[in-house]
Amino acid sequence: MPQGQPLVVPNDGLTTKARRNAPILAVHTGPGKGKSTAAFGMALRAWNQGFDIAVFQFVKSAKWKVGEEAAFQTLGRLHDEQGVGGPVQWHKMGSGWSWTRRQGSDEDHAAAAVEGWAEISRRLAAEQHDFYVLDEFTYPLKWGWLDIDEVVTTLTERPGTQHVVITGRDAPPQLLDAADLVTEMTKVKHPMDAGRKGQRGIEW
Amino acid sequence: MPQGQPLVVPNDGLTTKARRNAPILAVHTGPGKGKSTAAFGMALRAWNQGFDIAVFQFVKSAKWKVGEEAAFQTLGRLHDEQGVGGPVQWHKMGSGWSWTRRQGSDEDHAAAAVEGWAEISRRLAAEQHDFYVLDEFTYPLKWGWLDIDEVVTTLTERPGTQHVVITGRDAPPQLLDAADLVTEMTKVKHPMDAGRKGQRGIEW
Repeated sequence: MPQGQPLVVPNDGLTTKARRNAPILAVHTGPGKGKSTAAFGMALRAWNQGFDIAVFQFVKSAKWKVGEEAAFQTLGRLHDEQGVGGPVQWHKMGSGWSWTRRQGSDEDHAAAAVEGWAEISRRLAAEQHDFYVLDEFTYPLKWGWLDIDEVVTTLTERPGTQHVVITGRDAPPQLLDAADLVTEMTKVKHPMDAGRKGQRGIEW
Repeated sequence: MPQGQPLVVPNDGLTTKARRNAPILAVHTGPGKGKSTAAFGMALRAWNQGFDIAVFQFVKSAKWKVGEEAAFQTLGRLHDEQGVGGPVQWHKMGSGWSWTRRQGSDEDHAAAAVEGWAEISRRLAAEQHDFYVLDEFTYPLKWGWLDIDEVVTTLTERPGTQHVVITGRDAPPQLLDAADLVTEMTKVKHPMDAGRKGQRGIEW
């Protein structure tokens, strides 16, 4: 782990404290595993600090994140009932966004992505949460469902100290340019290459 | 996320179910962030499935993992008091391993690493836990404090269905060869390069 020693001290007129509180825009990309898992690990740490957590799952792959969702719903209840950690909201695109209360299939995935991003934009403007996970958000960008320039502008001009972590393969260059922290997960070896299937407690 | 379709079906005489339950040895290495965070994210998922979790932190960097430790201690209490998730143990080398009850400084870090690994070996032989995180375990290997061949043999010959995740830079080639899943985290961009310091809820 880094020992907290910056390589350079920027001439930006900010105090160390101001710089320390600067909100982070992080991107986990690349073909390897651990992009979402590391984002949820960050969210766990933020939850422990009492941060208000909101997860937005783009792309219909609900099956793969039920473990994280259940764990974070448990953590959110722990906050609500015992005041431990921070509050948690978990929204997913797969069967209609939670806040819309429309359940059922989203036939038009592009429209659902646009709707999800519009809600996130409103929440960022309102400084509604402290820590956002936009899971697999690179795909609607890659597929052209969202305007990358508008997304980057909204993210970089977000008010306050809201942290945002975005995951997914093939993050667009504009997003990487805008990010404070970019980690690429590279697949070196994967058990599915050896014919294994996903398993309980490991994949979900 | 992978969609669960193996590229090949191995001719190993195992049923899909047997292969599905095969224990995973995972290594998160490379210079980027997210190695430990992704391991703790995996542990969170395993906890949610009711797995018995044990974390062993090698290398004295306790300051950086207090958020994870506090969160997992909370999860462990949740199991003990309400039967939710799995039990959690968290052991760290920094101030004497928890099970030794000797507190205070470990002047001889190499001896502490040897002691930690001996205990892990015993627990693996006894199938004491379901999911082990050996955090920053690559360093005592890299520094020659532990015998890599002995470690790899113990890991690959461990009985039952115990999952092990090892984190740290510069994982030795023998360990990568033995692992089922290897992910390399590559640093593309890091806020400390721009003079930022670590911050609450993000770094700890």
